[in-house]
Amino acid sequence: MTDRIACAALRSRITDADTAAALIQPGETVAASGFTGSGYPKMVPQALARRMAIDHAAGRPFRVNLWTGASTGPELDGALAAVDGIAQRLPYSGDPVAREKINRGEIDYLDMHLSQVAPMAWEGVLGTLDTAILEVTGIRADGALIPSSSVGNNKTWADRAKRVILEVNRWQDPALEGMHDIYYGTRLPPDRVPIPLVRPDDRIGTPYLACDPDKIVAIVETDAPDRNQPFAAPDDTARAIAGHIIEFLTHEVSRGRLPASLLPIQSGVGNIANAVLSGLVDAPFDPMTAYTEVIQDGMLDLLDAGKLRMASATAFSLSPAAAARLNADMMRYRDRMILRPQEISNHPELVRRLGCIAMNGLIEADIYGNVNSTLVMGSRIQNGIGGSGDFARNAYVSIFMTPSTAKGGKISAIVPQAAHVDHIMQDVQVIVTEQGLADLRGLSPRQRAALVVERCAHPDYRPLLADYAARARGGSYGLHAPSLPGEALSWH
Amino acid sequence: MTDRIACAALRSRITDADTAAALIQPGETVAASGFTGSGYPKMVPQALARRMAIDHAAGRPFRVNLWTGASTGPELDGALAAVDGIAQRLPYSGDPVAREKINRGEIDYLDMHLSQVAPMAWEGVLGTLDTAILEVTGIRADGALIPSSSVGNNKTWADRAKRVILEVNRWQDPALEGMHDIYYGTRLPPDRVPIPLVRPDDRIGTPYLACDPDKIVAIVETDAPDRNQPFAAPDDTARAIAGHIIEFLTHEVSRGRLPASLLPIQSGVGNIANAVLSGLVDAPFDPMTAYTEVIQDGMLDLLDAGKLRMASATAFSLSPAAAARLNADMMRYRDRMILRPQEISNHPELVRRLGCIAMNGLIEADIYGNVNSTLVMGSRIQNGIGGSGDFARNAYVSIFMTPSTAKGGKISAIVPQAAHVDHIMQDVQVIVTEQGLADLRGLSPRQRAALVVERCAHPDYRPLLADYAARARGGSYGLHAPSLPGEALSWH
Repeated sequence: MTDRIACAALRSRITDADTAAALIQPGETVAASGFTGSGYPKMVPQALARRMAIDHAAGRPFRVNLWTGASTGPELDGALAAVDGIAQRLPYSGDPVAREKINRGEIDYLDMHLSQVAPMAWEGVLGTLDTAILEVTGIRADGALIPSSSVGNNKTWADRAKRVILEVNRWQDPALEGMHDIYYGTRLPPDRVPIPLVRPDDRIGTPYLACDPDKIVAIVETDAPDRNQPFAAPDDTARAIAGHIIEFLTHEVSRGRLPASLLPIQSGVGNIANAVLSGLVDAPFDPMTAYTEVIQDGMLDLLDAGKLRMASATAFSLSPAAAARLNADMMRYRDRMILRPQEISNHPELVRRLGCIAMNGLIEADIYGNVNSTLVMGSRIQNGIGGSGDFARNAYVSIFMTPSTAKGGKISAIVPQAAHVDHIMQDVQVIVTEQGLADLRGLSPRQRAALVVERCAHPDYRPLLADYAARARGGSYGLHAPSLPGEALSWH
Repeated sequence: MTDRIACAALRSRITDADTAAALIQPGETVAASGFTGSGYPKMVPQALARRMAIDHAAGRPFRVNLWTGASTGPELDGALAAVDGIAQRLPYSGDPVAREKINRGEIDYLDMHLSQVAPMAWEGVLGTLDTAILEVTGIRADGALIPSSSVGNNKTWADRAKRVILEVNRWQDPALEGMHDIYYGTRLPPDRVPIPLVRPDDRIGTPYLACDPDKIVAIVETDAPDRNQPFAAPDDTARAIAGHIIEFLTHEVSRGRLPASLLPIQSGVGNIANAVLSGLVDAPFDPMTAYTEVIQDGMLDLLDAGKLRMASATAFSLSPAAAARLNADMMRYRDRMILRPQEISNHPELVRRLGCIAMNGLIEADIYGNVNSTLVMGSRIQNGIGGSGDFARNAYVSIFMTPSTAKGGKISAIVPQAAHVDHIMQDVQVIVTEQGLADLRGLSPRQRAALVVERCAHPDYRPLLADYAARARGGSYGLHAPSLPGEALSWH
């Protein structure tokens, strides 16, 4: 059972999940591995949740602050949220149980730019980190940790935590070893230096995570799959969006504004994003690269089709079928994949240098192209901003995509004014819906509004939006970006 | 008269402003030098405006698109706007005449991140550049151009324009020669490489602008001062804001979260910003550096006091008295100043690497710390986002400062919801008014709201804001960031 733990000195720390969880005290800050449902600890958090439930039943408060890479799975976020065990959560949450608690005001949620978590933790403004719970694929004889299916903030958590609990998950493919690239060159200013990455496939670090063995207080062996969820099969809407994007990119290549193999692709997580990736299988761009947060099913399709030369990310986010496909053929895939710390996968310096083509989803966009990615009705968190801000502001081309309506047509994704703004109009260069694509580069706000309404809005809402825009031009305080504050949010 | 033009071959291009302006045709895109009222062309634009007025009187349309570094002066923006000669304006405008035209919907204004102008021009999405009008201090024998009191986008304009008109302004101090650092290492992706700057005082380029002499179609000699405007003397409000910021920075140093000499200072343009700089003369931070957009009066004070070791910027923005002080002692000052292209002064890669302490103004902030820097009532442009986005998102600490009220107390700078958002809450870490300072790092939206209302709002508005926040907690769709869309904009 301990073949994944080659370090003899550390074998003495092997224990069970309950014993490990008992090392965590109420009020602690706990950092866990995990990014988009990959590589998060599965057993210790559930044991911790059981302890919390017992304590709560006895009237003893037991909550922790929970820091991760990004979203995790029901065994971590879900389990702790269900027992009201989370006081503070950062930097991203996608769990349905946790979402309800956040939106009831029961969890303090810090929705952060994912590239900024590690530097802010080092800066010291997030507070002290007590315990890190990190899933790894294995431990080498020299004590180096073989990372799991996500890297996220694990390097920072291992460095910053007072105590480290490891989950060694034998479900993770041992062939993951060697795929990762952990960069240890980050510093706090004034000692920061250029990050020496100029191509998506550059390796600038080591394949292993370092951790002071004296800090490793417990090791738990697990055998549990990641929270791999199926993607929806692309529907007509997703195919139409993909088609518009491919037509746009083709046009940009023909104008000489993009190389024939494009620039590194960044793709948000989700069904539409995945459909766009799948659509690129039939596009004329070859060989592409990806410099992105997560490797989704669509990227495996592109790799298989020979259209994608390599993909750099910080985590996998696969369906169960794609995860099986990956694991069945890991030796072949892994030479064309690199998993990095999210500080590097999302770094503004690198996103701008590489010139990523950013493609992200949204909740709503206003007629000027200000985008709300996070807050339904301006107040209810859906998931979080994630890496979209890291990529959108620094991209070569920043594309936002959405079906033009939601709730069966009852809600327009294009509104007079966004109820909350995550991406300001300067960072939103292209908006695409199944109706069409609006290239907003080089346009003034009024020009943007005309194009967004004409190209992107659903025909059912187009006249209403055009009417609002026309009346705003009549009654606005200024005509730079005409607005009627009295009714701008009346669609919400 | 031609002692500033040492290149014999180019002397034949010397002409008068009217002859030079006659080379510009209706419908052209004209790029000019100029950044915060420094180093913009003064004579040719006025000659162009006269031509436009004549043509307009005769019923012949004559407008141009006008690109610059940032704001210029009445001889450029003002003169062309007054004759309705500007069709499109980018990336920043601060001229009162142009502002009116923009807000009447008569000029299409693209309000851009200042670091992104040059790369987007190279990308080709802004369109073709016909004529550049660049003010320089002189021309060397080898044809190299000695830059003026701002660098801005001049390198890019000289490279991209089909034709170049030079204004050689003998008002500019010849001792400016050698102060500039023009970096020629930028490329479009996939050929971008790390920018080799790791300290604010690193020189990574050459002191001169290159320009193909065959493109130089006219040279006009001028002797005209920059639009140097006096700063208001710091009042009690400004002094209180400066005091809160210095107290905060002192606290950060004492906690070990900032070095004793701080990190490079970035300061927005304006009276409050200038007052904060002046206040730092008496602060215990020593020796500081600045990596910023503009060198203002307050930075001269800091240099004189020996508190500032050096300042890197892209332009001067001085009062007439400070400009005279600078020019009287330029040989002494210039070794401690570097003027760079705005692509470099504002580059996200460098702002993040250096860890700038960003201090910028605002029009209004909402209780969650979303900041509106540009659009009064959500529609009327004041100036533009300028470099505030480049700095705020990538800073080590991002500070926004404002008096708590405007219009003699009739308007609160803290509102339930910003009518427009330029800086999302993730990018706003500290808000400071004369009332106090709110350190929002590590806080959830509800925690942020409580602190902003308590620390920053004026006592006259605090109860109203607290009442809104309390009612929002009762009636909001979600309680992550409670909001009442029906009245969130009712203060506007």
